[in-house]
Amino acid sequence: MKRKGLLIVLSGPSGCGKGTLVKEMLARGDCAVSVSATTRAPREGEENGVHYHFLDRAEFERRVAADELLEHAEYCGNYYGTLRAEVERLRSEGKHVILEIEVQGALQIRGRCPEAVLVFTVPPSAAELYRRLKKRGTETEEVIARRIARAAEELPYAVGYDYILLNDALEDAVADFGAILRAEAMKTRFNTEQTGAMIEDVKTFHVSDHFQE
Amino acid sequence: MKRKGLLIVLSGPSGCGKGTLVKEMLARGDCAVSVSATTRAPREGEENGVHYHFLDRAEFERRVAADELLEHAEYCGNYYGTLRAEVERLRSEGKHVILEIEVQGALQIRGRCPEAVLVFTVPPSAAELYRRLKKRGTETEEVIARRIARAAEELPYAVGYDYILLNDALEDAVADFGAILRAEAMKTRFNTEQTGAMIEDVKTFHVSDHFQE
Repeated sequence: MKRKGLLIVLSGPSGCGKGTLVKEMLARGDCAVSVSATTRAPREGEENGVHYHFLDRAEFERRVAADELLEHAEYCGNYYGTLRAEVERLRSEGKHVILEIEVQGALQIRGRCPEAVLVFTVPPSAAELYRRLKKRGTETEEVIARRIARAAEELPYAVGYDYILLNDALEDAVADFGAILRAEAMKTRFNTEQTGAMIEDVKTFHVSDHFQE
Repeated sequence: MKRKGLLIVLSGPSGCGKGTLVKEMLARGDCAVSVSATTRAPREGEENGVHYHFLDRAEFERRVAADELLEHAEYCGNYYGTLRAEVERLRSEGKHVILEIEVQGALQIRGRCPEAVLVFTVPPSAAELYRRLKKRGTETEEVIARRIARAAEELPYAVGYDYILLNDALEDAVADFGAILRAEAMKTRFNTEQTGAMIEDVKTFHVSDHFQE
């Protein structure tokens, strides 16, 4: 029987390297991302079930009402959300599912899935966050100022997360993320079955049956 | 300012390799063990403050009453225990303090020091536990049977620990233990100060002061 994978929620301000981190974790082979559901129309080249699960508004709302979404939000008149069944299918295959979502969605998941592991990435400093946003080269002063202001709004939510992941050097952050996965997989609550079996095994072991071997 | 170290409690049946694990962790340089206090008489070559803190019975009892011990127990008419001040001194130097103690002591620590991280080592199977105990060569069938029976008594306490550390191959167990330390050091509750400072840093950052650079 495959061990069930973990559910990891990753949040953090824009410019903290969440996307790169997720890409590095996917390269390990034991992690997966969940395909989100949306009500927005597919764009050129987007496939249903690959880029998104495309649902119409009534179907999306029916699923929300049926508690089939771990989290959802509305942006620009379209719904986006995470399908519980999609996440559970991947976890039952032994994959650690990483959801890169913003703070409101993370709080929804905390409520619906208490065993979810919440990781919040932070930059080494405001100045470094600024440098990273500026380095992209495409943003105006106004856009960068708005991003920094948004970061200031999001950061206080970090205190409700399980882990603070400082993303300074990428290599260290990847190793940190890996340590979180490795440690969380050892948490007692994920090992109740194995521990129960071990206790039974030791309780029913008779030294006298073996000592002459 | 040095980051405060973690307090790690390690328990598990005899034969699970706790001693070897602790030795490997000490070799990393960022871990330490605490010198225990005892009322038993020093043996030849034992130094006060190095092997044990040797206290007389009245002094030990005074310290227990003053809540100066994180845990203590009586064996063969002598007290043994862990001095809170000793542990806190090491932690304030940035060391992760590892206490190898049995289940009753671990429960006392959970009560007195809620941020302690409790790790329970388990063998891969009863048969392997038996093989390890037998390999020592010095134990009689009776002694091994008593150790296995004691393991069966101790194992149910594992469910109250934070982590179950399977000690199959030593190298893996050392890496697992290292991952627990690395992850725990990222726990939000150990990073409240840094997170608060980061929030303040981002809140007070003015893009307009930097954009022309």
